[in-house]
Amino acid sequence: MPSPIHFYLDVSSPYGYFGAMLIEPLAAKHGRSVEWHPILLGAMFKSTGNQSLIQQPLKGPYSLHDFARSARFHGIPFNIPPVFPISGVAVGRAFLVLQEVSPTAAVAFLKDALTAFFVEGIDVSDANKAVTLAAQHGHAFGLSAAQIGDAMSTPAIKDALKAEVDGALAKGVFGSPFMIVDDEPFWGVDRLPQLDRWLTARF
Amino acid sequence: MPSPIHFYLDVSSPYGYFGAMLIEPLAAKHGRSVEWHPILLGAMFKSTGNQSLIQQPLKGPYSLHDFARSARFHGIPFNIPPVFPISGVAVGRAFLVLQEVSPTAAVAFLKDALTAFFVEGIDVSDANKAVTLAAQHGHAFGLSAAQIGDAMSTPAIKDALKAEVDGALAKGVFGSPFMIVDDEPFWGVDRLPQLDRWLTARF
Repeated sequence: MPSPIHFYLDVSSPYGYFGAMLIEPLAAKHGRSVEWHPILLGAMFKSTGNQSLIQQPLKGPYSLHDFARSARFHGIPFNIPPVFPISGVAVGRAFLVLQEVSPTAAVAFLKDALTAFFVEGIDVSDANKAVTLAAQHGHAFGLSAAQIGDAMSTPAIKDALKAEVDGALAKGVFGSPFMIVDDEPFWGVDRLPQLDRWLTARF
Repeated sequence: MPSPIHFYLDVSSPYGYFGAMLIEPLAAKHGRSVEWHPILLGAMFKSTGNQSLIQQPLKGPYSLHDFARSARFHGIPFNIPPVFPISGVAVGRAFLVLQEVSPTAAVAFLKDALTAFFVEGIDVSDANKAVTLAAQHGHAFGLSAAQIGDAMSTPAIKDALKAEVDGALAKGVFGSPFMIVDDEPFWGVDRLPQLDRWLTARF
């Protein structure tokens, strides 16, 4: 069984969202699974010295333009959310709660949360909104909204999200999306063509 | 006559080098010319707050790996130069001296300088080395190495390079390579597919 593609994304990252919509067909083409990792770029910027794209002179206005053009290029629905960027803590914790009962449900929730944020403009950093979305996927596994909300506040889940962030940094992850497969690192949705060729030809 | 693709690059930028090797066939495909602009990222970082890729935590080691993999991906010869990064001042000034007598010779020189740096490892920030390379292209236009070296030290040429840098910043340029066509900006060699589609379909 070949090892999975490790896919790291910050919920507030437009390029991470595009990558999330594109990674599964690419992985399937090569007989690989995807292992999803919610990360928090804001927390990681303390280690890397980076800052949010849109807060940077010149790069900020360009990025807003490029987000929208890249969405059209990839054929993915996209609107700049009215509140942006946001914290990915609530979605990250809800993802980890769901992951304990069903990794599939957790990924479905994560993609729902990305769509809610980047298409409908819903501020999913609001824990109540994240919980409501997560409950739609937890219901089939006997998890109510209240149970998900409670679990998100436990030290175990808080620590699990911190561990994802620290684990990502330890692997050299510094941006979103970031893909690692067989120890080969790829940063950015614009590296999917190189990832595709790597999985074919180890070029 | 359609307007040219404005192509901005820093001589010390690997992605700028890859773009320089790829932009002309793409432009020709769409009946566009290329107008080349030497820029100095180091000087521009003072305005943009950026810093050299390879000096950044995590992003630095990744970038060195990605330079080499991107070169293989695009089929372009590449070696990390022993002295890297370097100042693009000498090459930029020599380019502008040649441009006064022949824009074609100036571009041929610029591509030679990139190859000298990124394939042969020659430190073309050394004015003598830049002049020697430039003289090979200036000779046909009656320009000797000594004349090129003298012209590079004139206020007119020094100011012309400063004007390129300031003009680039005024257009929103913050990285290398950077392409602008019909006021549409594209940053990075990985945006060539979007530039290609833009020139076809204005998507």
